[in-house]
Order: sequence, then C-alpha cells, then structure tokens
Amino acid sequence: MALDLTSLPRPSRDDATVGTMARGLVGSEILRIAAEVRELVAKGRKVCNLTVGDFSPREFPIPEGLRTHITTALQAGETNYPPSDGVLELRQAVQRFYERALGLKYPLEGIVIAGGARPIIYGTFRSVLDDGETVVYPVPSWNNNHYIHMMNAKGVVVTTDPSHGFMPTLEQLTPHLGTARLLCLCSPLNPTGTMISKDVLGAICERVVAENREREKTGKKPLILMYDQIYWVLSFGSEKHVTPVELVPEVAPYTVFVDGISKAFAATGVRVGWGVGPPSIIARMRDVLGHVGAWAPKAEQVAVARYLEDVPATESFLKEMRQRVDARLEALHKGLSRMREAGLPVRHIAPQGAIYLSVQFDLVGKGGLKTNDDIRKLLLEKAGLAVVPFQAFGLKEDTGWFRLSVGATSVAEIEDVLPRVEATLREALGVK
Amino acid sequence: MALDLTSLPRPSRDDATVGTMARGLVGSEILRIAAEVRELVAKGRKVCNLTVGDFSPREFPIPEGLRTHITTALQAGETNYPPSDGVLELRQAVQRFYERALGLKYPLEGIVIAGGARPIIYGTFRSVLDDGETVVYPVPSWNNNHYIHMMNAKGVVVTTDPSHGFMPTLEQLTPHLGTARLLCLCSPLNPTGTMISKDVLGAICERVVAENREREKTGKKPLILMYDQIYWVLSFGSEKHVTPVELVPEVAPYTVFVDGISKAFAATGVRVGWGVGPPSIIARMRDVLGHVGAWAPKAEQVAVARYLEDVPATESFLKEMRQRVDARLEALHKGLSRMREAGLPVRHIAPQGAIYLSVQFDLVGKGGLKTNDDIRKLLLEKAGLAVVPFQAFGLKEDTGWFRLSVGATSVAEIEDVLPRVEATLREALGVK
Repeated sequence: MALDLTSLPRPSRDDATVGTMARGLVGSEILRIAAEVRELVAKGRKVCNLTVGDFSPREFPIPEGLRTHITTALQAGETNYPPSDGVLELRQAVQRFYERALGLKYPLEGIVIAGGARPIIYGTFRSVLDDGETVVYPVPSWNNNHYIHMMNAKGVVVTTDPSHGFMPTLEQLTPHLGTARLLCLCSPLNPTGTMISKDVLGAICERVVAENREREKTGKKPLILMYDQIYWVLSFGSEKHVTPVELVPEVAPYTVFVDGISKAFAATGVRVGWGVGPPSIIARMRDVLGHVGAWAPKAEQVAVARYLEDVPATESFLKEMRQRVDARLEALHKGLSRMREAGLPVRHIAPQGAIYLSVQFDLVGKGGLKTNDDIRKLLLEKAGLAVVPFQAFGLKEDTGWFRLSVGATSVAEIEDVLPRVEATLREALGVK
Repeated sequence: MALDLTSLPRPSRDDATVGTMARGLVGSEILRIAAEVRELVAKGRKVCNLTVGDFSPREFPIPEGLRTHITTALQAGETNYPPSDGVLELRQAVQRFYERALGLKYPLEGIVIAGGARPIIYGTFRSVLDDGETVVYPVPSWNNNHYIHMMNAKGVVVTTDPSHGFMPTLEQLTPHLGTARLLCLCSPLNPTGTMISKDVLGAICERVVAENREREKTGKKPLILMYDQIYWVLSFGSEKHVTPVELVPEVAPYTVFVDGISKAFAATGVRVGWGVGPPSIIARMRDVLGHVGAWAPKAEQVAVARYLEDVPATESFLKEMRQRVDARLEALHKGLSRMREAGLPVRHIAPQGAIYLSVQFDLVGKGGLKTNDDIRKLLLEKAGLAVVPFQAFGLKEDTGWFRLSVGATSVAEIEDVLPRVEATLREALGVK
C-alpha cells in the first residue's frame, strides 16, 4: 500500500512555504479564458477559438523536413547533453540564416540556443538587470509585467494607441529612457499583429545610441534594447520587417534579439529558440540559462540546424505558412470590414504580421456592457467566438480592443462565426 | 553585403552591460577540464574520459521504446504548446511510477514537468527563497553554490568526509538548521556515487519536522528540504535508496523531489524532468518555470508518458542499465583495489549508486604535487585518464579526492587505462 499524500496542502495566498516573488506571481489571464472555452466545448457548444497564441497541429503542422530530421537525429543517438550555448551546427545555421535573410553577420559567440524564445526573454532580463532597475515597455504587450515582477525591477508603462498601430513613438519613450536599463520592443507585435515602421524604430534606436554615448561619459550603465522578433518571418502588409541593427548599426552593442522556430515554423512545442546579440551579453545569458537548464533538446537542435540549411525547403515552407496565416487574417479582415461598413461599432487594423489581428468592439457603455470582459463573455456565450481582451496584455483601460489569434482555426470556421458575431452585436445594440 | 558585426564586444569582468549576478557567475570547472581533454584528443592522444556526468550514446543509448514513442508522437502532431505544468498523461504516468516504485501516492497537483531536472532545482530555489535567506548544503555536491549565487542567498557549507560516505550527518547539520530556509540533499550523490542511509536520512527528516513544528508556533517561515534523487534507479550496493517521505511522512509538506529521465534512461539531451512535492510549492514552481519557459518538448512528454506506462519495457531497460553501469564501476573498483593492495596511496568507496565512483589519489605533498589539480594534470598527461577533482563540487581543501564518471566509457577502456594509472603513480612516487 502506497503512502497517501493526496491531501497535501494546496497553494494559498498566505502560504509561507514559498517566497515573496513566487507568491506574488499572477496567473495567465489567457489560460483562465482558455479553461472557460474548454468547459463550453465540453458541453457540446461550437466555439471558434481565437484565444491562444499557438497553432493547431492539424491546421498548422511543423515542416515535414524538420520532423524527418528530428527522427534521424534521434536514431543517430543525438540524445546526450548539448553544449550549454547550443549545438555548434545550429549556431552556425542561425548565423547564416541571419546573414542571408536579415543582412546581419553576427559572430558565433553572439548566438545562444535555448528551449524556446521565452528562456531568451527571461535570460535577457536576468542577465542585464540588477534589483530595482527600470524597464520601459509599451502596453499592450506580452508578459513584460511578469518578468518585471520576477526581477523585482521597476516597470515604466507606455500606453500605445491604435492611431500609431499600438507601437510606441519616440516622443512617448523619450521622457523615460534616461533612467531605464532595459527597453522592450516587439515587432510584429503580440498581441496586436502590428509592425513598427522603419522611421519610428530608427528614431528610437538613434535615441538609444545617443543616450548610451552620454552614459559612457559618466560611467552609467548602458540602456539595453530587447527586440523580440519571434514573428518576423510572418508579415503580410506593405510594412517590411526591420531590425534595429540594420537601421542604426551603432545600436548593435546594446541590442538583444529574441527569436526561434516556435511561430515561424508552427513549432511551439518543439522548444528551440535563440538569442542573438553582443557576445558580452550573450555569454552571460548562456551561463544563466545553463544553470536554469532551459536547454533545447539535442536531437531537435541538430534537426533545426539541418532544416535551416536546406534553404529551398525553408523558403517554400515559409511561403506557404505566410499564405495560410494570411488567408485566415484576410477572412477576419473582410468580415470585420463588412460589419463596419454596415454601421456597426467595429474597428480593426488590417493584417500586418504575426498570427494576430487587433479589433475593437466599441460596446463599452452600450447595452449594459461595462468592461472588455463583459464584451468577451457576450461574444463567447452568444456568438461562440473566443477572444482575449487587451487587459491580458497589461492594458488598464476598457477600450473594447481584443486580440484575435488565428493559429488554431480554419478559414471555414472564421467564415462560419462571423455572421453569429454580427447578429450578437445587433442584438446587444438593439439594431436590426 | 551583410553588415559585419563579428567584432562586437566580448565578455569582460568589468562589463557594465550586464548585471551584478550575471557578471559574478562562475563558469563550470568541469567544462574547462573537458575542453583540455578535447584538445589532447584532437592531438591524437588516447584518453579515458571519466569527466562528464553524461552518457556516450554509443555506450548508453536511450531505450528503443522511448525513441519509437517520440517519433510516433511527432508524426501525430504533438508539436504545439504543452500545458505549463506538463502533459496530463505524463503527470499521471509519474504519479503511478512513484506509487508503484517508491510507495508514494502524490496528487496530480503535486507533479510538475520541466525541461530536465536542472529547471526543477532552479525552480525550487526560485520559488522558495527570498533575498538573503539561508541555504544549507553538504560539500562535495553539484552546483548548489551557483544556485545560491543566482538567488543572492546565504550559503552554509557542511563539509562531509569519506568515513560517512560523503553524506552529512545530523550532528553536522543541526547547528545550521535553525536559521535555514532550504536544505539541499542528493542521493545517490553527484559527485561521490554514495548513498545516504535510512538511519541518517530518517534522523535528518525528523529534525526538519521538529524544526518546522517550532516555527509554526512563531509564524517563522518553514525549512524546505530539496531531495535530488535524479539517480535513484541506479543503485548497486547493499544500501537501498530511501526517500524522506517514506521514512518520515510528516516531512512531506516540506519536501520537493528533483527527478527525471536524464540519468535513469541515459537521456540527458531529451530534456524531460519532473518535480514532486506539496501542491503549495509545486504550483508556484509551475508558474515560475512557465515564465522562464523551461518546458520539456511536447512529443517527448507524450512519449515518456507512454514509455513509463509500459512497465515491463521500463523495468527490463533499467535492469540492463544498472548492469551496464555496474560493470564499469566494478572494473574501476577491482583495478583500484589492486593498486591499494599493492601498497599505492589509492583509496576509494565501493560502488553504491549513480554513475560515479569516489577515489582518493593521496599524492598531495608527494613527488612535487601540491594540489588536486596537479594530480589531475599528471593523470591526464601521463596516464591519459581524465577525472574531475572535488574542487569542482565546492570542496576547498586539496584532499586528493576525485570523481570518476563512467557514462561515456566502456569496460575495455577502463581496463586499458588502469595499468597506465598504476605506472604513473609508481613513477611519481619513485617506487617500482
């Protein structure tokens, strides 16, 4: 008979077994909503689920070549420890990928492999920051608030607006950069699916360089720019993806790229990401992540290296991937445009990048709806549409803006749900 | 033409781009030695490499069934995000594994999956400790010093000795437990290959429980026991592996197990580990590790679940695994015993567990040898034997003790190197 331990203590807010940081961590709002959706689906309700920033493997399988390479690597015994900065062939493949596709030739010492892009973000925060230092980040954005909490850093929020594509402007950032140690940018942006423009990013980077020139004189620690470009191969509109370093080469010593295969190759569960930047920072990230143990599995590292080196296979997959994401975003774009043209209070930003679309259901204060969450529930319950309010990405104000994520849905499902959404809006507003 | 960034700044001790913690992280002594070994091998020298705590996939492949399950899971599209606490089937499989093999029935909420056992250790430190709190750990042991540095905790070292199998005694620990928040134990122990006895562990656990009874009265935060049992299925001697919780059930609310497939199934590069403990702590570790992103790849999680549920396959693999490790340890044991019997200053502890053997080459102060590192270099250069001094595991004193790791070697290689070791010792001591 086994010793029954099933009634061991459950977590509680005042539990003294854990530390202050861990006790204060806030759970993911998206996961809470996802659980609600699962419950409805279990009851037999039809739900078009646009909540998770993930892929359905049925709609978006990983590249066949990548899968084959993983199997081959496993069979060849690539099952022991990878080096702590990653398998050399993969670092070389990423080096060539960046040279080929982004025009940036980094040294090998400037590339570190990790078990996804998340550890690269965590590693950047953990390697750069000292206790209490300031991090500037735009809102809405993904999880910066949690990393700031974990680091006991001071977060300075810049709330962006739709007229600037939810991207921060130089004017908004400037007052805060003098005291900041870390500036977090992401493009294409999760949750909005928007992209930063060449002019705006260039101006911000020049400001970062100027700030650091000043700091050099006084010995003050420099301002580091974390540039999360995990979605960079997924762009659709006229806006081209740009990098800080191509625009302002002098910002390179202060810039860390966050990247990996998770989104570009629909491989969120394969756990291979990379950080690219100055070796001075990347070497520390390698040490930090080595102790954390957030390594990518070795067979997958070897496989990704071989896959990325197969340029025709990679490019043909990415082309199809873009088409498939774009088809879904376009279906939303058309349907939402129709509603707007029909006079409904719906506004959205045309597809630009990532797997997201920003939409405003401008219903706060109408038909008894008071908050974004009221609107979310209405759409879920009446229309069977599951979406995530910008509140889950740090926004305080109830502006009616939501993230729509298309990685786990089909064009048919989208076309199916749109009439239900329109009917729900009409009913809530009392219009025919 | 790509922008040439290859001359970006390299890491330096006074680099202000990184934070104090990251700048102060000390690199792995083992990796430094490994690089030295690689250099010799590249020059064509024959080296029996007993340094890395890893496996050679040629000598120790992962279970065939596990490999097949990974391939199948990949083909079935298990390539998107796993839940942040791990795939349910795997948590259930670990639950049944612990019930079946250790007689401990944990609730599902008490099991979290991560990308290896390292993230579980990091997650324990990060979830339990507040800044400046005290961690008590025995030396020699693996990496506790690094985790303490990362957490800005206060480390209290208890130096163990060979007469107690390099395990701490209750008498050694007691003076420090009153102020400690975390006590780190590991058995079978890396680096020594020794196992803690039922009596010693039981007494320590009773002390932990008594301490926490006292703390409950005053509201002082409890003392948590981290029990790293990543090598527990690998035991060879008469000493049976024991757990804190089976010996003293009352210690369960304060105990976190560190475990995974890395060592038991020769799968260090597959990156699947788990933590088991009270849900109060495990839930926080899930939140912390979720943000860190140290997740196990999804296909591997599904595959390990299926493999562990195949009890006959698992048991037959483990039986063979134990035999293969034991054969290598026994070859060392016999060879070293012969040297000792021949009057050479060699002393070792007979095989007990893990993939390690502790050996003392008692040469400090003899033949011009002053430190463990002098002895290490002599053995490497003259005998072609690569070993790791206990200094790499936190020991300050040059006692002549070393870790021998057999995961990447064969019985033939061991039998081949032993005469060279004996000849080297005789030459250094000037005896025939």
